Amino acid sequence: MAGQQRDTSRDGLRNKIEGFVLSGLQPLWKFINETPWLARIANGLIINNAVLKAPTRPLPLSTQAPTTNWSTLTDRSWFARYLPPAPQDKLPPVAEVASLFKLRPDRPPTLSDRSTLLFPSFAQWFTDGFLMTDKDRRRTRTNHQIDLSQVYGLTPSVTAVLRRRSEAPGEKGRLKSIRTATGEWAPLLYDASGARDPAFALVPEPINLSADWPVEQRASMFAFGGERANSTAFTAAVNTLFLREHNRLCGLIERDNPGWDDERVFQTARNITIVLLIKVVVEEYINHISPYWMNLLADPTPAYAAKWNRENWIPVEFNLLYRWHSLVPTHARWGAATVELAGLRIDNRPLLQDGLVTAFAGASETRAWRIGLFNTAPMLELVEAASIQQGRDNQLARYNDYRAIMQYPRVTRFEQINGDPLVVSELRRIYGDVDQIEYFTGLFAEELPPRSAVPPLIGRMVAADAFSHALTNPLLSPKVFNTATFTAAGLAVIAGTTTLAELLARNDTVPAGTRISMETEGYQSVA
Amino acid sequence: MAGQQRDTSRDGLRNKIEGFVLSGLQPLWKFINETPWLARIANGLIINNAVLKAPTRPLPLSTQAPTTNWSTLTDRSWFARYLPPAPQDKLPPVAEVASLFKLRPDRPPTLSDRSTLLFPSFAQWFTDGFLMTDKDRRRTRTNHQIDLSQVYGLTPSVTAVLRRRSEAPGEKGRLKSIRTATGEWAPLLYDASGARDPAFALVPEPINLSADWPVEQRASMFAFGGERANSTAFTAAVNTLFLREHNRLCGLIERDNPGWDDERVFQTARNITIVLLIKVVVEEYINHISPYWMNLLADPTPAYAAKWNRENWIPVEFNLLYRWHSLVPTHARWGAATVELAGLRIDNRPLLQDGLVTAFAGASETRAWRIGLFNTAPMLELVEAASIQQGRDNQLARYNDYRAIMQYPRVTRFEQINGDPLVVSELRRIYGDVDQIEYFTGLFAEELPPRSAVPPLIGRMVAADAFSHALTNPLLSPKVFNTATFTAAGLAVIAGTTTLAELLARNDTVPAGTRISMETEGYQSVA
Repeated sequence: MAGQQRDTSRDGLRNKIEGFVLSGLQPLWKFINETPWLARIANGLIINNAVLKAPTRPLPLSTQAPTTNWSTLTDRSWFARYLPPAPQDKLPPVAEVASLFKLRPDRPPTLSDRSTLLFPSFAQWFTDGFLMTDKDRRRTRTNHQIDLSQVYGLTPSVTAVLRRRSEAPGEKGRLKSIRTATGEWAPLLYDASGARDPAFALVPEPINLSADWPVEQRASMFAFGGERANSTAFTAAVNTLFLREHNRLCGLIERDNPGWDDERVFQTARNITIVLLIKVVVEEYINHISPYWMNLLADPTPAYAAKWNRENWIPVEFNLLYRWHSLVPTHARWGAATVELAGLRIDNRPLLQDGLVTAFAGASETRAWRIGLFNTAPMLELVEAASIQQGRDNQLARYNDYRAIMQYPRVTRFEQINGDPLVVSELRRIYGDVDQIEYFTGLFAEELPPRSAVPPLIGRMVAADAFSHALTNPLLSPKVFNTATFTAAGLAVIAGTTTLAELLARNDTVPAGTRISMETEGYQSVA
Repeated sequence: MAGQQRDTSRDGLRNKIEGFVLSGLQPLWKFINETPWLARIANGLIINNAVLKAPTRPLPLSTQAPTTNWSTLTDRSWFARYLPPAPQDKLPPVAEVASLFKLRPDRPPTLSDRSTLLFPSFAQWFTDGFLMTDKDRRRTRTNHQIDLSQVYGLTPSVTAVLRRRSEAPGEKGRLKSIRTATGEWAPLLYDASGARDPAFALVPEPINLSADWPVEQRASMFAFGGERANSTAFTAAVNTLFLREHNRLCGLIERDNPGWDDERVFQTARNITIVLLIKVVVEEYINHISPYWMNLLADPTPAYAAKWNRENWIPVEFNLLYRWHSLVPTHARWGAATVELAGLRIDNRPLLQDGLVTAFAGASETRAWRIGLFNTAPMLELVEAASIQQGRDNQLARYNDYRAIMQYPRVTRFEQINGDPLVVSELRRIYGDVDQIEYFTGLFAEELPPRSAVPPLIGRMVAADAFSHALTNPLLSPKVFNTATFTAAGLAVIAGTTTLAELLARNDTVPAGTRISMETEGYQSVA
């Protein structure tokens, strides 16, 4: 799309060298990827380097107050923040900024040459597990952990009602589920008349399920731990996959440990399933995002002695950078058909009818749109405006301030952000001065480099937080990551799992030749 | 007291060498203490060595369950634990074990040759800020932090009612207080008729304040953030001292920053006051406990890159080892008189009448009893029995198991624990086998080595937890320990404060020659 060359004079020398080494030299990286001991060393160095691009925890500020106090250091119902509050008074109207995200009548949506719809679907489902914004957009209900709360619920009381709780052989440790012709599913949250099942009174109401939602669609909602897991047939499919894997693992654990009770089988299966998610996040999802040839590994040992191994606390900036709405297409493949994505919102009937493989294969056959300005589908325009507003409610500093704190030189010309003349002219028209560009806009205005699923600043911040978030999970810590926590069989399952495709293959019947991937066909993410 | 030599064959070679180097070679340590750059290096090495004697966090287990699950890794309303649950069925009756702690008719109480009553009084007040056992003795309400909750309350709502909240110059940031002829005090919680002041409805009821407590004594209770801060005139005195220091610091901050509002002055004063507590804890209190000649420093930098810098989580074993009831004498100096300590319980009238200096000087003139068996005053016998019971409720492993995990060889003979024939014969009579001695009993049965305020296993566990607890406080972290958090004046106050005596001197009129110390006169704790 870029009609002109972007001005790269403010990319930074170190950044350029790192890009050259890590996104070039493919034969070297191929050799490293194929040499386990070397791969572990390179992996540790790259992860350390990536995390140290961002300020490490504990951060002195939260959204609670503009200066450091005991609450900003301890009260995690507020978001952490990387930079102190900045004045918001000279900013253009939100509606005008939001216009930067809308599709233009004069150009068709740009497709990603790298990502399928499975990428944003997984990202949405995954981040809904820990990025939760309250009505007061400065606060959150998250526990700041990767704990599969989408499946297990945010609190022990929700977990309790989702469990089968049976000591009968073949039932121990299981999550409640139903079986249909298309396989195993979470129980339904409403009956055919649209009445809620009282057994699931504690389960959160699906978000955006309006009171006048058609009763047949309401009746297809699953009793999921996460309030957003029913959002689309694709998020529901990922959630179902992890539910099936949990129950499958229970069978494995029960077989090896016939004396164990329901509680021990459940907890062990949960321990394993959470770590399986982390494996997929690092080894499939992050490798897809990363423009490097290195095959990044979910090896927790680089975190053990790292200065960045400090308690998780989601920064509000991290919450905002994950608004990848421009990736979401208007249409998707579903079996032999192409359907409107809006028709798969808050409606699990197609999923229940056609099964998990149809959802995963359809998402894998659908190209995502390319992340960036002027590329958000009409149904998501309001969400972009809300994100801009959230940045202002939290008095975020400017894009250039975040470049600086993330070790990119400040830009001095609009042409350093993007080579697309439309992006340049519209940014100039709306902001006037590059130093006025706000954080959220700048994130998405950046030009997508080759081999990148997301623009550079987003990529840097996602990597820093993802590694320091995922690899510091208590389940991966030195005294916990062992057979006592997972069993030997569980550790073997963890070691042998990298992709959603592998998880799907052991939890459904996948026809030969079916492609399940976050990457477009022919794309090569690692050397 | 020891009639025979203790058998030291199971002390461990490394432990003996460390003891020789650190508790001997006084001239060397004197030189190190007087050479700042060397002292900082030695301090870092000693602190690291001390912390790494105990298993570091995250611990895989809490008191919630016998095996690792997501709750044992995240739900901090249970205590952490160093060792998994062990069978309790072969243990002698609690009453019989409790008899090991009681004073014997045939021998007088043993006095400490090292500690004054200020030592256990400060320890009690300090640990009441974070060691809280619920009715279910496996659970806790603590937030696991050193945050001066004794002064500020455990929750923001309690803090709010304790604050004056005034924007008037000279009043900004202050905690509510009253002034009498003897100085500044926290407000009273009850009126003269014994009715509770409704303004303090959210303030916790003082623990052990029975319904039939005399109304004059009830009327002397302070509105303190901590439920145990009114326990004795001495704990109330320490709490008052920190309240006065907070309000004094507000004046300092207000003077330097006339534009700041009540909130900012309050928060900055609290930030400083919490760190002052940590300074006193490490530089006065821990140096008193430590048998080393090294003058230990509250320098947080050894924690910055340490593998043990992980989120605090109080182990139940740490909670239990702090039951230093045998240190508490039956009588104390109070002005010119010697009074029964029981008479200073839950009654602040003498303190209000005679002032802070009388309390601190009295505690400093009173020798503590020596920690150990057969030395607990009758009024505290029931508390010892409750501690033994708490160990059993939590199914703690045996004393020898804790020796092993804390890097002491297991003992094989009773004579290796203590050289006192009575201790040996009574342990043998009650437990039969050294491997049966339970954790709580073993802690206090150990012989007190020279230059030690507490026995070896307690000392080791206190040091490991104290450093990894105090120095990982978020206020001391790299991005927070700076002038933005404390102001330059605040940092200077922090740097210049080491002892309770210094705090007292700036918050009351201390007559010349008055000795305020945790150490008996003539005792030398550092080289």
